[in-house]
Amino acid sequence: MSVYQELKRECYEANMELNALGLVIYTFGNVSAVDRSRGTFAIKPSGVPYELLTPEDIVILDFDNNIVEGTMRPSSDTKTHAWLYKNWEDIGGIAHTHATYSVAWAQAQKDIPIMGTTHADHLTEDIPCAPPMRDDLIEGNYEHNTGIQITDCFEQRSLDYREVPMVLLGNHGPFAWGKNAAKAVYHSRVLEEIARMAQLTLQINPAAPRLKETLIRKHYNRKHGKNAYYGQ
Amino acid sequence: MSVYQELKRECYEANMELNALGLVIYTFGNVSAVDRSRGTFAIKPSGVPYELLTPEDIVILDFDNNIVEGTMRPSSDTKTHAWLYKNWEDIGGIAHTHATYSVAWAQAQKDIPIMGTTHADHLTEDIPCAPPMRDDLIEGNYEHNTGIQITDCFEQRSLDYREVPMVLLGNHGPFAWGKNAAKAVYHSRVLEEIARMAQLTLQINPAAPRLKETLIRKHYNRKHGKNAYYGQ
Amino acid sequence: MSVYQELKRECYEANMELNALGLVIYTFGNVSAVDRSRGTFAIKPSGVPYELLTPEDIVILDFDNNIVEGTMRPSSDTKTHAWLYKNWEDIGGIAHTHATYSVAWAQAQKDIPIMGTTHADHLTEDIPCAPPMRDDLIEGNYEHNTGIQITDCFEQRSLDYREVPMVLLGNHGPFAWGKNAAKAVYHSRVLEEIARMAQLTLQINPAAPRLKETLIRKHYNRKHGKNAYYGQ
Amino acid sequence: MSVYQELKRECYEANMELNALGLVIYTFGNVSAVDRSRGTFAIKPSGVPYELLTPEDIVILDFDNNIVEGTMRPSSDTKTHAWLYKNWEDIGGIAHTHATYSVAWAQAQKDIPIMGTTHADHLTEDIPCAPPMRDDLIEGNYEHNTGIQITDCFEQRSLDYREVPMVLLGNHGPFAWGKNAAKAVYHSRVLEEIARMAQLTLQINPAAPRLKETLIRKHYNRKHGKNAYYGQ
Repeated sequence: MSVYQELKRECYEANMELNALGLVIYTFGNVSAVDRSRGTFAIKPSGVPYELLTPEDIVILDFDNNIVEGTMRPSSDTKTHAWLYKNWEDIGGIAHTHATYSVAWAQAQKDIPIMGTTHADHLTEDIPCAPPMRDDLIEGNYEHNTGIQITDCFEQRSLDYREVPMVLLGNHGPFAWGKNAAKAVYHSRVLEEIARMAQLTLQINPAAPRLKETLIRKHYNRKHGKNAYYGQ
Repeated sequence: MSVYQELKRECYEANMELNALGLVIYTFGNVSAVDRSRGTFAIKPSGVPYELLTPEDIVILDFDNNIVEGTMRPSSDTKTHAWLYKNWEDIGGIAHTHATYSVAWAQAQKDIPIMGTTHADHLTEDIPCAPPMRDDLIEGNYEHNTGIQITDCFEQRSLDYREVPMVLLGNHGPFAWGKNAAKAVYHSRVLEEIARMAQLTLQINPAAPRLKETLIRKHYNRKHGKNAYYGQ
Repeated sequence: MSVYQELKRECYEANMELNALGLVIYTFGNVSAVDRSRGTFAIKPSGVPYELLTPEDIVILDFDNNIVEGTMRPSSDTKTHAWLYKNWEDIGGIAHTHATYSVAWAQAQKDIPIMGTTHADHLTEDIPCAPPMRDDLIEGNYEHNTGIQITDCFEQRSLDYREVPMVLLGNHGPFAWGKNAAKAVYHSRVLEEIARMAQLTLQINPAAPRLKETLIRKHYNRKHGKNAYYGQ
Repeated sequence: MSVYQELKRECYEANMELNALGLVIYTFGNVSAVDRSRGTFAIKPSGVPYELLTPEDIVILDFDNNIVEGTMRPSSDTKTHAWLYKNWEDIGGIAHTHATYSVAWAQAQKDIPIMGTTHADHLTEDIPCAPPMRDDLIEGNYEHNTGIQITDCFEQRSLDYREVPMVLLGNHGPFAWGKNAAKAVYHSRVLEEIARMAQLTLQINPAAPRLKETLIRKHYNRKHGKNAYYGQ
């Protein structure tokens, strides 16, 4: 029996949940889960429909993209996941989708402004939209460079990936992450909802104001601060 | 057997209905139900997913936020519910959601104008959007002050909570109430529909007129007036 | 056994279909079916939730609004139905909803312009939006006058109700009709789709052109003309 | 047993999938599947509701619109399918729908601009919107001329139908095709999603840029190029 059986199952279930939540059509998305003790991660195989996917199909790789276990070709976005795991040591799962409203903001090349407490319950910053890559980076090691584009964006803006668990890639779509694969899917769903609320808000009032700092802090901290009182 | 068994069940079922109606994702909402004879109310525990929630999890509190029965931490919005029950003696249930269109109007910081009979079938006024709170109130007893923000808004505008069973909190989202918890959920669903209709109406015609007073009165009174002839 | 058993069942099933199609929430709609040979029609009782409705609850009335059979109070919109049956002798069923996009156009007080073949497959005219009534008519026999408002609108615009099986009532919502109750529901669903398509079209291109006359005639006639070749 | 049993089943299943994906209401769509070895194709019968459709109802025709097998009248759009099969020898299936967002762009008479990688994963060009036909062509052999309108549009723009598997007909709606009927349905679904994303993108940012050429090539080629590495 594979030592990765549990990891594969976590990865499989998170991928299935992505589909159940309506965040993907066909095979337009992928979720991975990491095993930090072994320096490996599990990811969906490329182009396999959700209705045919089984836990055994999940591919195991190390952070240099070497296949450790599995017979199928891993997701075409695998190198982006590997880069993020390698550089951001506190994340346990990553999800990528082409969810409609998230993609619309990415195509618009706009950060999603923080305008309400639904947003502040999850993060204190605008959701960043990384710019499209330079041509030589696109023509080079594309998916690897996509990972660099994300970490560069966070560095340049002085964002902490532990506090901002999601990003839009300009003209492409969202990546989200968390302490495990299920949380990465959760953040993908929350991002889609925030993206939809923001689009509607600006339709109703193009001059809708940014959420004020005290409300941002209050809502973020009551869920995530050291004196958090949300949940059990 | 708890004397609150019936109240807990009413509260549980209303919370489950909120979820079934698609008004919440994850744990973004809560419903409470009051027992006026005992001066207590039942509310959803904080952060518990709907698929795991049971009637026994429901928490019972008095209007000063003391837990009377239950082992779980109550909803983080509990103090807002308590304030409303304490001050508005004719309400029997309260619901809070982050439903998409309701939140969009709240984030836009706009009252929802009365533009049609769907709206007038339920209330005769624009749906008020209370302004965001002062910084010191946010940094103080936040959820308690949220309740005050709502009752202040109604007082300043001379609105009667018995005739206007819903409000938007600027940058946050909707609260709705009614004679019992089921009616509070009903008003949350109606608010979401009115919010969506209003957003679409203004997209089609930014100069869409307010509903005229005779139509407002006619529709409200045929359902709620002393000569009402709607229903059985 | 009632002579109206069949009529009640037709009416019941059409009402249930309205709900199954997502055109109503709660009790925001009603369908009726006529028996021309007896000069009576069947209609949904007022305010009864769809999940509780049975064929036996359906109320039978004549065209002067006298109850012929049934113990429940008929729909509050009954007099509008009666007027239309009395004046438009070729219709066999009528449906009224508060479907979202149809209501949005009604609240915008705009006719829905004919911009595509989906529209022309069903009618050759813009979908008319009747203006809100005069105050004295609202304060008088309101639902009866609503019927007059509809027939007046058709008369003033020289529209034939046999060719234009739907209307918007300004600030209120849609009425649709057809040779029987099922067809009235069908036209309600088609209207909602046309309303949504038109709203989106004008968002993409505010200067989107009207469908040209040859295309209107071609599409209408291939389904409804004397040489129609659509269907079996 | 008919030699077309397999072809009929392929056609039937693709039609049912169109409905299951929510791309059609009532009978507003049709899918066909070709048998190149026999020079025939299978198509949905006209106006038959999906819940009543059976594989046996599917009609078989040659490319000159002669019925080869079947007792029902074929889809009213049959001649458009026949023309496309006759002229574009590498397609194996065709789907036509009145899906909401696709129709909205067609009614707006606008090409759908390529603005993201979801689009570039499938084609490298804007999705063309063919202009409405000349009056004499509408009044003549309409559905046959619709086919010509599509092939003319591709010729004038120097588009290759093998690389651009979809088109909008101005004021009407989408046609999509592929190597078989299932792929034609897939392209119809993808088109609807791209149409929705593009509409939302332009609402968020009316000046949203076109996707740059390197990204278009990268995404198209990783799925469709000679060194494609997407899928198994």
